[in-house]
Amino acid sequence: MREEGSPVPKPVLTARGRATRERIVTAAADLMHRRGVAGTSLDDVRAATGTSKSQLYHYFTDKSALVGAVVQWQVGRVLMAQQPELDGIDSMADLCRWRDRVVELNRDAHALGGCPLGRLAAELAEADRCAPIELVDGFAAWQRHLALGLGRMRDRGELDAEPDVLAAGLLAAVQGGLLLAQAARSVQPLEAALDLALSGVAAQLAPSAGPARV
Amino acid sequence: MREEGSPVPKPVLTARGRATRERIVTAAADLMHRRGVAGTSLDDVRAATGTSKSQLYHYFTDKSALVGAVVQWQVGRVLMAQQPELDGIDSMADLCRWRDRVVELNRDAHALGGCPLGRLAAELAEADRCAPIELVDGFAAWQRHLALGLGRMRDRGELDAEPDVLAAGLLAAVQGGLLLAQAARSVQPLEAALDLALSGVAAQLAPSAGPARV
Repeated sequence: MREEGSPVPKPVLTARGRATRERIVTAAADLMHRRGVAGTSLDDVRAATGTSKSQLYHYFTDKSALVGAVVQWQVGRVLMAQQPELDGIDSMADLCRWRDRVVELNRDAHALGGCPLGRLAAELAEADRCAPIELVDGFAAWQRHLALGLGRMRDRGELDAEPDVLAAGLLAAVQGGLLLAQAARSVQPLEAALDLALSGVAAQLAPSAGPARV
Repeated sequence: MREEGSPVPKPVLTARGRATRERIVTAAADLMHRRGVAGTSLDDVRAATGTSKSQLYHYFTDKSALVGAVVQWQVGRVLMAQQPELDGIDSMADLCRWRDRVVELNRDAHALGGCPLGRLAAELAEADRCAPIELVDGFAAWQRHLALGLGRMRDRGELDAEPDVLAAGLLAAVQGGLLLAQAARSVQPLEAALDLALSGVAAQLAPSAGPARV
């Protein structure tokens, strides 16, 4: 039980405790990615991990705490998969390398599965609710990684645009591209989305790329 | 019961029958948009519409038949909301008008709800399955509407790019933008996504906009 506004005291975990918590989060992430959050009960997670009710509640006060941990775990995993290309963005050529990495990951997955964060966002941000804070933070972190590289280009005078806005557009291209790729079972929509967005970034390179602007 | 491969015989409906079917589909669409497809049972739909089990099965052989009808209904509704801007695309200025309409719709919804088709796609295209055919067809129809206008521009020599590929990129920008808008509870990601994509289209205008290309 948790009072509104009071911070949740985090138990200090031993190495073994950390390993158990990690095992629960990993199994829950897998179940929730396959069956959806609504289709995954705490009993399912207990069954998949062989943990008791009291063990599970020792690590997570309720299902929403577990969902938050799953979101954070997926954020880390999604960003890790794009490394080092994501943090290496320092030029248009680097952006294309990052694009190629994102497409490669989708091709390896046979265009299935979509983005784990996008799937969670579509399910958790219901018609009348917004997404859990861990998801908002996750997208913001992803966008920040992109904006950092674009900011370096802007600071050197190579880019004539707001890095944050471009980064939001690029992230949307990834999300929309992955969603359509999954529906079509083909990487082509993802490639089309990223190529169009990168074409938009290239149009805002300064000064050689000229004034093509909407 | 339906044999694999045999066409489902469609009952000929009276005006009253069509109205009942429409009422069931509308209520199911609302429930599925709010609670998800997995969170909506046929019993929920019966309760919401005051129909009997045999009435429901008269119109829909099973839940997946109802889901298919809901997807088709949502496709029609989503495309209708963008009219006449979507079919009026014949220039860069028209594309911007369509962009403004999509943003306006999202602003009217307080950036909540996302795209009904995107939500259905994220839920129905599970990790190891692709989306139902009605959804694939729906995205394809939307993309075709966009490609038709871009094709006219290309045929007049005003655009130097493949209309279908640009249309896929624009549709992805809408989908990704709406997803991030819902997570952030703000239309800004949608605006950023569409502006970047339109900037990419503008960069491929021929011949005045120059060679900015990735």
